[in-house]
Amino acid sequence: MQLRDFNQQVQPAIDETMQQIVAHPLVNPYTGLAAILRYHLGWEGPGNGQDAQGKRIRPLLVLLSAAACGGNWQPALPAAAAVELLHNFSLIHDDIEDHSPLRRGRETVWKRWGVPLAINAGDALYALAFEGIHQLNQTVSPQVTNQAYKIIIDTCIKLTGGQHLDISYENEREISLDWYWKMIEGKTAALLSACLLLGGAVGSASPVQMEALQRFGRSLGLSFQIQDDWLGIWGDSAHTGKSTDSDIVSGKKTLPVVYALQNPKRFAQRWLSGGITPSEAPQLAQWLIEEGAQTYTEQQASRYTGEALSALDQAKLDNPYGAALRELAHLLLKRNS
Amino acid sequence: MQLRDFNQQVQPAIDETMQQIVAHPLVNPYTGLAAILRYHLGWEGPGNGQDAQGKRIRPLLVLLSAAACGGNWQPALPAAAAVELLHNFSLIHDDIEDHSPLRRGRETVWKRWGVPLAINAGDALYALAFEGIHQLNQTVSPQVTNQAYKIIIDTCIKLTGGQHLDISYENEREISLDWYWKMIEGKTAALLSACLLLGGAVGSASPVQMEALQRFGRSLGLSFQIQDDWLGIWGDSAHTGKSTDSDIVSGKKTLPVVYALQNPKRFAQRWLSGGITPSEAPQLAQWLIEEGAQTYTEQQASRYTGEALSALDQAKLDNPYGAALRELAHLLLKRNS
Repeated sequence: MQLRDFNQQVQPAIDETMQQIVAHPLVNPYTGLAAILRYHLGWEGPGNGQDAQGKRIRPLLVLLSAAACGGNWQPALPAAAAVELLHNFSLIHDDIEDHSPLRRGRETVWKRWGVPLAINAGDALYALAFEGIHQLNQTVSPQVTNQAYKIIIDTCIKLTGGQHLDISYENEREISLDWYWKMIEGKTAALLSACLLLGGAVGSASPVQMEALQRFGRSLGLSFQIQDDWLGIWGDSAHTGKSTDSDIVSGKKTLPVVYALQNPKRFAQRWLSGGITPSEAPQLAQWLIEEGAQTYTEQQASRYTGEALSALDQAKLDNPYGAALRELAHLLLKRNS
Repeated sequence: MQLRDFNQQVQPAIDETMQQIVAHPLVNPYTGLAAILRYHLGWEGPGNGQDAQGKRIRPLLVLLSAAACGGNWQPALPAAAAVELLHNFSLIHDDIEDHSPLRRGRETVWKRWGVPLAINAGDALYALAFEGIHQLNQTVSPQVTNQAYKIIIDTCIKLTGGQHLDISYENEREISLDWYWKMIEGKTAALLSACLLLGGAVGSASPVQMEALQRFGRSLGLSFQIQDDWLGIWGDSAHTGKSTDSDIVSGKKTLPVVYALQNPKRFAQRWLSGGITPSEAPQLAQWLIEEGAQTYTEQQASRYTGEALSALDQAKLDNPYGAALRELAHLLLKRNS
């Protein structure tokens, strides 16, 4: 099973399941609310289409994990839709919290409809993510559905914990590597872990496999985030779709920055006085390299890439779906966009 | 069983269950987040204590319903805690959406910690409400737990539907009674219905009883809200704890106002030109009476009070807990504060 073929096969089914959940009979009477959700999910409004829908890698991970453990991806569809809806709920709220005007090249929900309706639309999507888990009752046993609820609940708590740290340190000068790891553990690693665990639960994975899948998802998430941080500073703007320097100019606390602040030199001195202009960014990016932040970041990415691939080995998914899962991991960990 | 005795017996257990859920091992590492939640729930910070915790009528309804149907209130405790946490999540987000600086006489979460952390704290409480449902696994069968999840999910969708209408018509001149009923159906009736249904599910109520409990909760919620609207305009400020005229001055679209706008006369003319000062409010409240809005509002309150009590009869809860539930309904429907 080639990853590309699998992806082409399952994406229409993921979309259909999401559409069916969002067309919930209790949402339908509220046409204005439904329109916001359908806009955010890339189905409606200006700029709708695949680019606006995102790559839907998380539901893909759920289905690959389920198929690699249990042989079938179909029973995991409601869980796959649930994680994508959950991810999208968190994007709507994150965009408000970060005051971001654009998401996937389109106006964000709060920018288009105002903060109050955007908070509420996120809350609706939150409920619909749980509706996805509820629909697992149609495809798996009550025990597995119950297990899936627990995975999603724990993930939501971790997500809000990570997000709390991210927001509350936004204007904090004193930040530590410890803070950084705790933050991305919640913000990025938790949901990817959940994808693998949900697939494993549906595919009746053994406890040993579940533990390995959890570690695989976590390390994949950490490594992916670290590479995202790298790209935000040194990536080619044509590849990242945003100005190369944006993470330095926006003041985002990425791993290279947090590393450099631990042992303050030229970068820290300039960074802490604030108000960095786009024209200064290349110089600051260069100082980060000279102060060892790039090397450290690459070492960490490499470490978690290694841990991810080794955990995947330990899950012993020796079948074509397992191979496709490995292919996806390689793709995510060596991405250039 | 007197309501007062029952309430005194169960409130410490409700509080303890809520405390245990909020002290979730995945929340604890995020001390800042835990502090926000504990502040909002009235356990910590300036002004903490019973007044800050609210009356916790919703969990009381869950426990009374469970006991009246099944004989025991203890197995319903996790569900009771869940509805109170869910109610509190919605209060945190509502306060942001309405830009309210005060809640139960204390600074609101967004006012104290800013909008981003407040949105996120609400999201955390949302997850913890579901954790409450998850903990039903310890007291009832997987089938009942599953049924409880479904009740909570549907309720969350209805809540966001009602809230969407409320926000999106905030600056709308053309509003109808149809809009009003749809809005409070979601914002108020849904959660009260859910309380009764959750108790019924835990207490193994028959399908006929479940249907009656659902109608009882809904009518109770509608009648309660209509009376709240009445008090917001004609209530004694000493009883409501706020200036008598506040709902007219704040421009809130309560039932008397919506009624008067259907057949525009003097009230509508002044209301639609906006910027009503506190000194004008008594005159506008008087016009509402003259134009029949008070009579209509009282008729509607009376209608739903009647429907609530008749539905409760049909649930045939002929035991001391059922009597206490009826006592609570009477108390809520004839309240003067």
